Amino acid sequence: MSSYFGKNIHVSVFGQSHATAIGVTVDGLPAGEAIDQAALSRFLLRRAPGRNALSTPRKEADQPQFLCGLLNDVTCGAPLAALIENTNTRSKDYEELKDVPRPGHADLTAQIRYRGFQDVRGGGHFSGRLTAPLCIAGGICLQILERRGIRIGAHIRSIGGIEDTAFDPLGVDCATLEKIQRSDLPVISDDAGEAMQKAVLAAHKEGDSLGGIVECIVMGLPAGIGGPLFGGLEGKLAAALFGVPAVKGVEFGEGFGVAQMKGSQNNDPMRMQDGKIVMSSNHAGGILGGISSGMPVVFRAAIKPTASVALSQESVRLSVRQNETLNVVGRHDPCIVPRAVPVIEAVAAIVILDALLDPQG
Amino acid sequence: MSSYFGKNIHVSVFGQSHATAIGVTVDGLPAGEAIDQAALSRFLLRRAPGRNALSTPRKEADQPQFLCGLLNDVTCGAPLAALIENTNTRSKDYEELKDVPRPGHADLTAQIRYRGFQDVRGGGHFSGRLTAPLCIAGGICLQILERRGIRIGAHIRSIGGIEDTAFDPLGVDCATLEKIQRSDLPVISDDAGEAMQKAVLAAHKEGDSLGGIVECIVMGLPAGIGGPLFGGLEGKLAAALFGVPAVKGVEFGEGFGVAQMKGSQNNDPMRMQDGKIVMSSNHAGGILGGISSGMPVVFRAAIKPTASVALSQESVRLSVRQNETLNVVGRHDPCIVPRAVPVIEAVAAIVILDALLDPQG
Amino acid sequence: MSSYFGKNIHVSVFGQSHATAIGVTVDGLPAGEAIDQAALSRFLLRRAPGRNALSTPRKEADQPQFLCGLLNDVTCGAPLAALIENTNTRSKDYEELKDVPRPGHADLTAQIRYRGFQDVRGGGHFSGRLTAPLCIAGGICLQILERRGIRIGAHIRSIGGIEDTAFDPLGVDCATLEKIQRSDLPVISDDAGEAMQKAVLAAHKEGDSLGGIVECIVMGLPAGIGGPLFGGLEGKLAAALFGVPAVKGVEFGEGFGVAQMKGSQNNDPMRMQDGKIVMSSNHAGGILGGISSGMPVVFRAAIKPTASVALSQESVRLSVRQNETLNVVGRHDPCIVPRAVPVIEAVAAIVILDALLDPQG
Amino acid sequence: MSSYFGKNIHVSVFGQSHATAIGVTVDGLPAGEAIDQAALSRFLLRRAPGRNALSTPRKEADQPQFLCGLLNDVTCGAPLAALIENTNTRSKDYEELKDVPRPGHADLTAQIRYRGFQDVRGGGHFSGRLTAPLCIAGGICLQILERRGIRIGAHIRSIGGIEDTAFDPLGVDCATLEKIQRSDLPVISDDAGEAMQKAVLAAHKEGDSLGGIVECIVMGLPAGIGGPLFGGLEGKLAAALFGVPAVKGVEFGEGFGVAQMKGSQNNDPMRMQDGKIVMSSNHAGGILGGISSGMPVVFRAAIKPTASVALSQESVRLSVRQNETLNVVGRHDPCIVPRAVPVIEAVAAIVILDALLDPQG
Repeated sequence: MSSYFGKNIHVSVFGQSHATAIGVTVDGLPAGEAIDQAALSRFLLRRAPGRNALSTPRKEADQPQFLCGLLNDVTCGAPLAALIENTNTRSKDYEELKDVPRPGHADLTAQIRYRGFQDVRGGGHFSGRLTAPLCIAGGICLQILERRGIRIGAHIRSIGGIEDTAFDPLGVDCATLEKIQRSDLPVISDDAGEAMQKAVLAAHKEGDSLGGIVECIVMGLPAGIGGPLFGGLEGKLAAALFGVPAVKGVEFGEGFGVAQMKGSQNNDPMRMQDGKIVMSSNHAGGILGGISSGMPVVFRAAIKPTASVALSQESVRLSVRQNETLNVVGRHDPCIVPRAVPVIEAVAAIVILDALLDPQG
Repeated sequence: MSSYFGKNIHVSVFGQSHATAIGVTVDGLPAGEAIDQAALSRFLLRRAPGRNALSTPRKEADQPQFLCGLLNDVTCGAPLAALIENTNTRSKDYEELKDVPRPGHADLTAQIRYRGFQDVRGGGHFSGRLTAPLCIAGGICLQILERRGIRIGAHIRSIGGIEDTAFDPLGVDCATLEKIQRSDLPVISDDAGEAMQKAVLAAHKEGDSLGGIVECIVMGLPAGIGGPLFGGLEGKLAAALFGVPAVKGVEFGEGFGVAQMKGSQNNDPMRMQDGKIVMSSNHAGGILGGISSGMPVVFRAAIKPTASVALSQESVRLSVRQNETLNVVGRHDPCIVPRAVPVIEAVAAIVILDALLDPQG
Repeated sequence: MSSYFGKNIHVSVFGQSHATAIGVTVDGLPAGEAIDQAALSRFLLRRAPGRNALSTPRKEADQPQFLCGLLNDVTCGAPLAALIENTNTRSKDYEELKDVPRPGHADLTAQIRYRGFQDVRGGGHFSGRLTAPLCIAGGICLQILERRGIRIGAHIRSIGGIEDTAFDPLGVDCATLEKIQRSDLPVISDDAGEAMQKAVLAAHKEGDSLGGIVECIVMGLPAGIGGPLFGGLEGKLAAALFGVPAVKGVEFGEGFGVAQMKGSQNNDPMRMQDGKIVMSSNHAGGILGGISSGMPVVFRAAIKPTASVALSQESVRLSVRQNETLNVVGRHDPCIVPRAVPVIEAVAAIVILDALLDPQG
Repeated sequence: MSSYFGKNIHVSVFGQSHATAIGVTVDGLPAGEAIDQAALSRFLLRRAPGRNALSTPRKEADQPQFLCGLLNDVTCGAPLAALIENTNTRSKDYEELKDVPRPGHADLTAQIRYRGFQDVRGGGHFSGRLTAPLCIAGGICLQILERRGIRIGAHIRSIGGIEDTAFDPLGVDCATLEKIQRSDLPVISDDAGEAMQKAVLAAHKEGDSLGGIVECIVMGLPAGIGGPLFGGLEGKLAAALFGVPAVKGVEFGEGFGVAQMKGSQNNDPMRMQDGKIVMSSNHAGGILGGISSGMPVVFRAAIKPTASVALSQESVRLSVRQNETLNVVGRHDPCIVPRAVPVIEAVAAIVILDALLDPQG
């Protein structure tokens, strides 16, 4: 259990891949916030499959139906609930998968955890599809944050070892963020993007898949948000980010790079600039002692390669407890990283709005 | 706010570096668990400063006083509370630091968050000293887990780029764990340890500091513990680990390495062995879909170099809002990584015990 | 905010009276629990309006659509979500009510809390209709509890001062519980029931309404469930019960009656009976120190008279800030108490199942 | 488990009656709040035993030692921790009580819950002594609330059926509140107070005890605080109030009296007065739909008679599973109600401050 998180903004995700619907409830949104449905649709489209050669050819409308919480597209203070009906499902051969768990998936662990009662069709509650309702919640939070001068953007930092230009941790201009968000492949460098596409298609041809890294920046967050120890921004962001299927690592600022740095390099010098305190570098990723410093919050999430590969894999047949060779069939993203980009933005938006609403001082 | 975490095992850490005391409350420990005080003392000693040339020469007794929760050293079901009195404190020149915040510390962010009311002496509530009570809580959980066949161990994976032998993700033998835990410098390879020592002393000589990586393994955890999405083991561990001051990255299994792997490499093949399902590799770090797979849980935390360096640094004087050069004086660890090792074990133990107590299935 | 509660069973209620739908998510239900849909429908029918002369003539189908969490009517471990579409709504004259808040309703307080953005139609999120999804959640928990030998039943203890026979706090036989649950008016004494009906109809004729008391018993709960202080069963039950609109008082065992008792009367003597410890009386309502004693848990909730009365009432017109006489029109229950009975059972079932799943000892 | 509560103000109570100490941590207090230690001592003295003939002759200093969270008696934003050492303890014959549980106490339920590992001395963690740290936390919150114009006061509403003058639910003047708080017996009517004293002494002479009712009023709370359903003020107050040992009922406004009222009587008419919306009556106890209305919040808690009576009682001897007559010896309050008055104020203060800090609208 617990497909929910948040203290002030309480998000609860529900649904299985092939159930009647997936959806989300969001409790605690401030009343009086207008939701731009067209902008929200554009945001959701960034996560949708079938947009380019890298993702599954499955088409999903994924348009949310809002059940409550809005009045004429303005938040009314009551919990918001939205759902997406599951229409394009092909449930035929999942019983087989229940007996022969797929490597890299939650098939085996769910089988043990739920003693065989889990819904195995399409990955059930463990499906990446559950990130769609998360994007509904996050897309709304993004709009609320933008109205408060806080802008969140992410890009593919790398796929299969091919690196995009890194975000400048001192700030990214709006034009760059907008270019990324309009693009089918959210990268800064078009060359890097092309190379990534080639690498993914090559892996796909081999029946294989690629992983990568998503980098995210939060700009405009005032200093003083968050708290020490277990109330820190890093912990709250990480707790939610690891809730996104396929995330295996999270780092802030220099992240694992700090292990090779000296203190004198890693510390961010302070100085006055136009009457304000700024830092000359941002190795800390905008967070010191769990609290925002006023510099952009910068973090990265490692996304594992899609577990569903066409190559033969070794598994076991549970009913007879014998080894078995498994061939996963079906339509799968050869690389989930591009579609993970808006999901990471969504999760960041929820956590940042939650922290912003916390009583201060 | 919120210096506490946990659902079934609720840990709340309190104290400032130079307040009367620091301490911890632990609510939810099962009743009837005997605490081996000598073993707990040995565990706490591993975190204590002054053990070798790498850490601050400050001596801290750091022996906990148990206020309640135990009856003849057996848990009685009531919340446990323990404190460590702060004795060896030198509070003289902290007012100066309040006006000129130290780079890399929480001085500035705390000043903004608490509007100048924070306790700045010795880092206040943001001090690494707060990890001592965390070790009391975690040391107790470690004993409870061992009794249930679950063993947790960590080592320095790297300092300043110098790498120790990695843990075998399929399992580490007890002799190795014991060697690490008995050692002043918790590494597997003595050569790596010597090289690390030299690097730290060299940095120290320059008035600088080094960061590193701690690697941790949890063995004996049954399959089926944890849950999907925001109830996953990764998120719960990360939330707590980022509560440890200086942690800037957390990764599970291959972690950020997944970004350069193919799905066929990263997926862990399954097979039957002596009637049990095992995996031939453990790239997943023992967690699939947020749930333990029965393989060891393996994760790493990046620890930034100590922010207190003797070199001159650029800061600002808040009272006059002008640039200022800062020279931090005082006794500081040139590398905090060795002392972070038992802290990471402690945090892991709390989270794992918490997850183990969750209702299953 | 926070239309959710529970630690192990996490229930989140959403919807407004005239929104597209109302509904509920339930996270943490054990996997493998079969849901008897026919029995659930019968349970929900007990809350439905239009069953007798005492309740609103509005007809609501109120049949839940399950979106997820079930597989062939068996819980699969994933969060359960269910909704009820709002069909029979007449939203015409609510704008007027937004300007002239109804006494006894949340109109004014919601207006202030949500700065005019709340959904005022039919009471919005504050409507008694929100107890329907609560009954879906609770109805499922009731079935799970019955399978574990725990039986929960409630009846109208009084309406307008007319008292039904009290539950025997030492236990109520199944036949009595079944009679109550089958009846249109859930009382033990038919005479009391008739008198209540007359009283309600008389009040209705005057354009007025009546309040009452619901009494609930939980039988079969093992001793040792709950905890001291803020983890106690009384606090957990009360927290949820006061979440039911119109509840203004909650008491356990003798409740407010203890104020007139002596310790020697109120203490429940213990004795051995057939090798088991029993109590000769049950003034404590089955709870000592927040923990179940093995005796039935007995509690009562006071339900205020329906705030919507046909009589003229004094209010204010917010737009011009002047006094105004208000005449509430529409169809309303002259007495909500009968329909509250299954709601109280539902809430009790959720809390008891939550407590039962807590780690023990 | 869970001896803690609160969302923004997180209070965690620890200790057993005869352990080294009892105490409390309070996380989330706003920084910069001066604590008047003399006023706090006076507040704690109101709960202390030995003040009059009605309470136990035990003397307890009960002066709190603040471990952290304060800097020169001003909150610094870090968690506050305070403890009271247990000095005057007589632990001799508690082993006997472990075998023969006292009726009306948690002896038996704790024995089952903690499988015999509980600390039985003086009631252990279930002792009324645990309300002392609660008063430390609440006393501090009271001071913070007063600074914001919110005043909380309680009195003995009744003891053994003898009634004090009720609080005027439209507001109580400061002089009355101060008289109550200065008095050894917190009542409005001196005659009622004298009659209560006589009744308690008479019961004491018979070796018996009396229960009663505490009534509490919160004045100055702005309208719009709280939320619908499970986020309501009533539920949050009740959850905490039932955490106070001996509380068996909680009611708001008319409370159980609503069961005998008509809607037209119970609804509070609104009108304009000096440009503000006021209600002509306050049957709702200042809360509508879980949200404060701007009228005083009024509630009552039923306190059971002290379970420790000198009269012989029927119990069982657990070791041999036979009936046994028990004679409780020791010094006990013949009526706990007077000492419960500041405890109820303390709990109310914590919950109200918590609600006040919640993000609004």
